[in-house]
Amino acid sequence: MAGIRRVLVANRGEIALRVVRACHNAGLEAVAVYSDADRDSRWVRLADDAVHIGASAATKSYLNADALLDAARTSGADAVHPGYGFLSENGEFARRVADAGLRFVGPPASVIETMGDKAAARASAQEADVPVVPGTGPMADEAAAASAADGIGFPLLVKAAAGGGGRGIRPVGSPDELAAVLKTARAEARAAFGDDTVYLERAVPGARHIEVQVLADEHGNVVHAYERDCSVQRRRQKLIEEAPAPDLAPGLRAEITAAATRLAAHVGYRGAGTVEFLLSRDGDFHFLEMNTRIQVEHPITECVTGLDLVAEQLRIAAGEPLSVRQEDIVLEGAAVELRINAEDPDQGFMPAPGELSRFDLPGGPGVRVDTGLVAGDRISPFYDSMIAKLVCSGADRDQALGRAEQAVRELAIEGVATTRSLHGALLAAPEVRAGGVHTAWLEDWLAEAR
Amino acid sequence: MAGIRRVLVANRGEIALRVVRACHNAGLEAVAVYSDADRDSRWVRLADDAVHIGASAATKSYLNADALLDAARTSGADAVHPGYGFLSENGEFARRVADAGLRFVGPPASVIETMGDKAAARASAQEADVPVVPGTGPMADEAAAASAADGIGFPLLVKAAAGGGGRGIRPVGSPDELAAVLKTARAEARAAFGDDTVYLERAVPGARHIEVQVLADEHGNVVHAYERDCSVQRRRQKLIEEAPAPDLAPGLRAEITAAATRLAAHVGYRGAGTVEFLLSRDGDFHFLEMNTRIQVEHPITECVTGLDLVAEQLRIAAGEPLSVRQEDIVLEGAAVELRINAEDPDQGFMPAPGELSRFDLPGGPGVRVDTGLVAGDRISPFYDSMIAKLVCSGADRDQALGRAEQAVRELAIEGVATTRSLHGALLAAPEVRAGGVHTAWLEDWLAEAR
Repeated sequence: MAGIRRVLVANRGEIALRVVRACHNAGLEAVAVYSDADRDSRWVRLADDAVHIGASAATKSYLNADALLDAARTSGADAVHPGYGFLSENGEFARRVADAGLRFVGPPASVIETMGDKAAARASAQEADVPVVPGTGPMADEAAAASAADGIGFPLLVKAAAGGGGRGIRPVGSPDELAAVLKTARAEARAAFGDDTVYLERAVPGARHIEVQVLADEHGNVVHAYERDCSVQRRRQKLIEEAPAPDLAPGLRAEITAAATRLAAHVGYRGAGTVEFLLSRDGDFHFLEMNTRIQVEHPITECVTGLDLVAEQLRIAAGEPLSVRQEDIVLEGAAVELRINAEDPDQGFMPAPGELSRFDLPGGPGVRVDTGLVAGDRISPFYDSMIAKLVCSGADRDQALGRAEQAVRELAIEGVATTRSLHGALLAAPEVRAGGVHTAWLEDWLAEAR
Repeated sequence: MAGIRRVLVANRGEIALRVVRACHNAGLEAVAVYSDADRDSRWVRLADDAVHIGASAATKSYLNADALLDAARTSGADAVHPGYGFLSENGEFARRVADAGLRFVGPPASVIETMGDKAAARASAQEADVPVVPGTGPMADEAAAASAADGIGFPLLVKAAAGGGGRGIRPVGSPDELAAVLKTARAEARAAFGDDTVYLERAVPGARHIEVQVLADEHGNVVHAYERDCSVQRRRQKLIEEAPAPDLAPGLRAEITAAATRLAAHVGYRGAGTVEFLLSRDGDFHFLEMNTRIQVEHPITECVTGLDLVAEQLRIAAGEPLSVRQEDIVLEGAAVELRINAEDPDQGFMPAPGELSRFDLPGGPGVRVDTGLVAGDRISPFYDSMIAKLVCSGADRDQALGRAEQAVRELAIEGVATTRSLHGALLAAPEVRAGGVHTAWLEDWLAEAR
């Protein structure tokens, strides 16, 4: 690739390894970074070079922009891939990367910032004629909120403008709860994001989470790679994702994917991104937010389209055109991703760090495993608890789900508690087999099972 | 599946696990068998039931037809999948399975026997108008051989009729060597196969090994799933296989696949099978032999066609029609398989049994691993030395080979010597990158590297 030769992988875990793989496949060098806790990690060993960036706490390492920029400089990297989480959606970091003369593997800082401000993102969607859930702009005060809430109706949600990814959201059941929730939400938002701006949005009970993968290059090409259904969530954290969305009518698929590419084009998007929608029971869809980075669940889209999304990210960052046109991207088969977390479902999903004394991975046809870990590794308490993604695909949804069941059976983990058995139970649940559960289904199901 | 409910998996290792997976995906129960050495193996744990069949030596267990038939009876199996190797191409075993009222997952015993007799198989090919390498029927004596050899020309090969899979073959460079080689070949064939019938075949120097996957059901459907190139061989044992064959002209592909289905139809084939050809430098192809079972390298065909070949085997054995018609089988992308053996390339490829103290598998997009082993397992000296198949696929050959290189880097094995590094070197060799090496290339390359 002419525009890039050596990529700093500014992340950790499975996504760091995913980027190292993509770099090597593209003939690029990959430079890993690591905190104290990650010194002996697999992605560090497999990279062409590695730089220590600080202590184990993320604020001292993977969230430390200075350390990352230093690492890029000292290692001779000419591009920075931020992965997901950490600084991947931090506009200031993207700007500093660009100012240092490096390519940021993601959209321009201004686009990250617009989409990162969830109220501004709503406004952009409206400008692009993409339906949004009825709601407001930033709320100046309680009185304005009370009046706006009347117009929206209850139940509604108070959302932090600086939130996203399911964080910074509080439900309000009735008018008399509003003032108290607003106050709490503002305080939480200030503490979590350093910004207490909040807005209101109508709650859409019984809706599904449908998201569209988009890709855009600097040559004006904007395409989508169809949708994913990520409705199996607990506390707005996804546990199971699938592509394509079960039983999505072709006309609706065409509309929702067109809305996503319209928004991406409107905001001058560049790179891989995900436009998230709520699909209500009556078949209406509304914009939820846009994630301006590679998504955890990107592999299922790769399975059903044959694309290598991280390779496309690198091409785009290097200034090359996308490798495909829209008409080349064809949906084929079905895929499901199970996020295996080191959490104990019997202890309120408490994170379960410890040593992975056994870690036997599933294999065979249609089974892909993405993990940054190997047997003998310690799962650190400092970072998120996902330890592996089981990505299972097949000629149709039944085959993909059947392979996922078998993969769960084959996965053998000792040393830490995990969500493995929960996934086995979920795959056997008639609602999951039927497809089309809504985003609150899992919590209801867990409550009943308890 | 109406015709089958519970399958005895009459094999071991990765192919036993492959069959267990396919059974589960098809909603069938799988019964494993195991020798002393394999008691704690992964495929045994993952099966629904398991039967001990004897001591570690294969003749006491996996080659012991009585023990296998007993296991089928006592476990209530209604079908037997023979895998590859062991009794998979033993007509007598297939007959006994059928006589016991069980379905044999493979062709009728008579077809196995015809194709197992390599001289009879040649005759069948000729009847089906499939080109064969110039050669003879069984040689009655030395005088007949000398006269026939004159007609064929030198160099030629003396082949055991009961051989196959690269076994029972001796080259003859010139007329004065013929008598001695014949004598040795007969003695070896008698010792190895209990049958000293031999025939002569012209040697085709510089030829590639191209094989065609066929599938046939009892409803008269015979299809092919395109070809594999398995020319990277050492002592006629395949190390790297790929699909499709690099640079095969579409017209030639059409001819060679048509020849394979013609032969399968002619012999009344049923099940999955492989028709092997030699493709000479000048583009002529000739029938080599037919393997009447699932092939080690079947996964690369699965990658480029989307078929599940073992699932098709089970459907066929259950009396169902194939799940696809010929026009549904479309070649897409490319795939390569690396056979990782516990052998020491620096010690003449001596088998290296021992404990697999580390076994970190590669992963990510386009990487499939088929192995019956997990970390901590002992690699037994009793069986073949293959420990894993790395199956890497991509949108094109370059991407598949790039992923294979990365997969080799990621594979970490400690405790036994393996062919891992050799595969890394082979993938970097310009001849392999270019594609189209002939079957003697690897031995020449190894000799030079030494």
